[in-house]
Amino acid sequence: MKEMEPFSLLVSHEEAEKIILSNTKIMDRIESIDVDSAVGRVLAEDVLAGQSVPPFDRAAMDGYAVIAEDTFGADEREVLLEIDGVIHAGEVSSINVTRGHCIQIATGSPKPEGADAVVMVEFTEKKNKKVLITKPVYPGANISKLGEDIKKGDVVLKKGTFLTPAKIGTLTALGRTKTEVYQKPRVSIIPTGTEIVQPGQPLKPGQIYDVNSFTLEAILKKNGAVVQRRPVITDDPKLLRRGIESALESDVVVLSGGSSVGERDLLAGILEDMGQVLFHGVQIKPGKPTLFGLINDKPIFGMPGFPTSCLSNAHIFLIPAIRRMARLPSGSERTVIAKMGKRIVSSSGRKQFLTVRLEGGVAHPVFKHSGAITSMAQADGYIMLPVNLDVIEEGQEVEVVILD
Amino acid sequence: MKEMEPFSLLVSHEEAEKIILSNTKIMDRIESIDVDSAVGRVLAEDVLAGQSVPPFDRAAMDGYAVIAEDTFGADEREVLLEIDGVIHAGEVSSINVTRGHCIQIATGSPKPEGADAVVMVEFTEKKNKKVLITKPVYPGANISKLGEDIKKGDVVLKKGTFLTPAKIGTLTALGRTKTEVYQKPRVSIIPTGTEIVQPGQPLKPGQIYDVNSFTLEAILKKNGAVVQRRPVITDDPKLLRRGIESALESDVVVLSGGSSVGERDLLAGILEDMGQVLFHGVQIKPGKPTLFGLINDKPIFGMPGFPTSCLSNAHIFLIPAIRRMARLPSGSERTVIAKMGKRIVSSSGRKQFLTVRLEGGVAHPVFKHSGAITSMAQADGYIMLPVNLDVIEEGQEVEVVILD
Repeated sequence: MKEMEPFSLLVSHEEAEKIILSNTKIMDRIESIDVDSAVGRVLAEDVLAGQSVPPFDRAAMDGYAVIAEDTFGADEREVLLEIDGVIHAGEVSSINVTRGHCIQIATGSPKPEGADAVVMVEFTEKKNKKVLITKPVYPGANISKLGEDIKKGDVVLKKGTFLTPAKIGTLTALGRTKTEVYQKPRVSIIPTGTEIVQPGQPLKPGQIYDVNSFTLEAILKKNGAVVQRRPVITDDPKLLRRGIESALESDVVVLSGGSSVGERDLLAGILEDMGQVLFHGVQIKPGKPTLFGLINDKPIFGMPGFPTSCLSNAHIFLIPAIRRMARLPSGSERTVIAKMGKRIVSSSGRKQFLTVRLEGGVAHPVFKHSGAITSMAQADGYIMLPVNLDVIEEGQEVEVVILD
Repeated sequence: MKEMEPFSLLVSHEEAEKIILSNTKIMDRIESIDVDSAVGRVLAEDVLAGQSVPPFDRAAMDGYAVIAEDTFGADEREVLLEIDGVIHAGEVSSINVTRGHCIQIATGSPKPEGADAVVMVEFTEKKNKKVLITKPVYPGANISKLGEDIKKGDVVLKKGTFLTPAKIGTLTALGRTKTEVYQKPRVSIIPTGTEIVQPGQPLKPGQIYDVNSFTLEAILKKNGAVVQRRPVITDDPKLLRRGIESALESDVVVLSGGSSVGERDLLAGILEDMGQVLFHGVQIKPGKPTLFGLINDKPIFGMPGFPTSCLSNAHIFLIPAIRRMARLPSGSERTVIAKMGKRIVSSSGRKQFLTVRLEGGVAHPVFKHSGAITSMAQADGYIMLPVNLDVIEEGQEVEVVILD
């Protein structure tokens, strides 16, 4: 706390966003992982079909494999075919279907030689060893052809694909057990502040428990990062410097604390010395005292110390940056439309992030002040109020971003 | 494949939903887990504040701790106060603030004895050992009172709360390292079908790779379940029965396969014998051959064998059921509005689930047929077409549920 001056290098929300996104590198490290743990990851390879799907001509319906020509006129005359056998799912029949004959077949089973169509069971009537066909079929009817879905060598999933459950199923359909994905960005969180104590330890006078590293860890993990929470560092320049140096083994360093101008300036000084500060303060409320810089081309975030400010800026800046690095699709946040439960007057001249509790389609503000834990405890989501907005009337519709 | 008859016990989508939801029990088993792994879980305890937050009167701003009365008139006359010391964050000062004196203080630091307000640094000017106050403050200004945010003994988070990152931070603010949450429902997935082979093994003629168990596993895990994928069971009544019996150690059993009427009927027979079938077939397309029943009060789902049908019914039936059991908030799916890329004619007389690919705000249908892997590989989301809908025109706006 050598100097106690107001923030310099204040930028707008949009400028801050631009600076951050143009200084975060998209991951290009790759790893091979098990397909059944790959959901939520991003493909780092084009996935080619090693074989065709279906791998053989197969029945698309339960019924009888026939020679289509035998069924022509079945709606006008009696067509009775001799049943030569049954093909259950997973079986292959060596019986050839010949004129006047058929084979009972289950959906998905390979079409027997000779047959060129399947009559659905709904249009048949079994009569002892024979079956009455009540509707004609054309050649190829109710048969999925080899490679009809995917041809051997086709690119089925492209590099960069976000792996949803459906895409995991696609990989296993091709017989894959492993897949190449981009590594997750590694983020180190350093809680800073002499007053910060890890939960589980007793509080001495003047101390408070660490909130931000845990909130940030949860947010970052949900957004595609591998997170390492590091020990609390007090406001000692040497220790802070050493802590940052050691955290630089990660791809990103997030300093989660320190609410005072003094703490901010200490960090800014170290950052300027070790690399560069790209902004120091954003025109946003809460969350003004956010710092961003680079050391060895690695992004360093100095988050505001107040829990709500830290939460808000994690949503505004950190999530987009980390998702971009991790190659995850943007716009992952869910929103709902709600009616404002109370008249809101915004006179900050800054963009405002307002936490709300949702109840029966109504958004009730829960923001007390940036330091309040209850603002976080009760928040179901948040509203972004633009810089030039003065008033939201009670009952007015607002878009609430869900905090989940 | 003893009997090959069309499905009986066909119910509507709404009836099926009602039957499923009224037969799934909400979890009441509890476990204690580490707070830093509790995100996404549901609180099984009321969390009380073990101490007040803030735990002491503290400065809400960087500045000077003063006696408010000393500052009265500071906008009109020169008020110079003697600086008796500095309180850095985390420090406690033993100095008493007396009339005409003050102590420099950092945000979050405990208010020193004697002082009753903080003057923000912005409204001061340091002059050697003194500070010029340029704006008066009222008693209590810029001070967060002990317990102002949370009082010792307050219920901060209620039983049943869904633990978001902000709520994890709330727990650690109270010093918690462990928390009681509801256990996740345990789901066993049994892939069925003689033709089904696990990925990684070579395919024999007539065989295909397991798709559904992997898709289902990913979906269920994302929706709050602990999943056990079990070995493939062929269409043998004894093995199937034994497989289900052993899977009944779970809370829910999902049979992920078998596309044919024969396989369905086999399962229905076993279910009727061991428990009861509640429906067998739903008026929905794709995904008609879905079966639901109970054994020992435990829900048993027989999913359709075709991958797209299985995916669709997992979204329609399985996700709501599992989320209800897990006590997770409903309505977790993200939707976007898109323009239909192609005219769609629906003539099934059933509700229809149509997979689409999204590109520049346009929804392109990717559905070929229920067995097609490409329908899954390319799907970004799906549209639900009501029973009575015949046509969606090209360019018409539709709501797409994101598959993620």
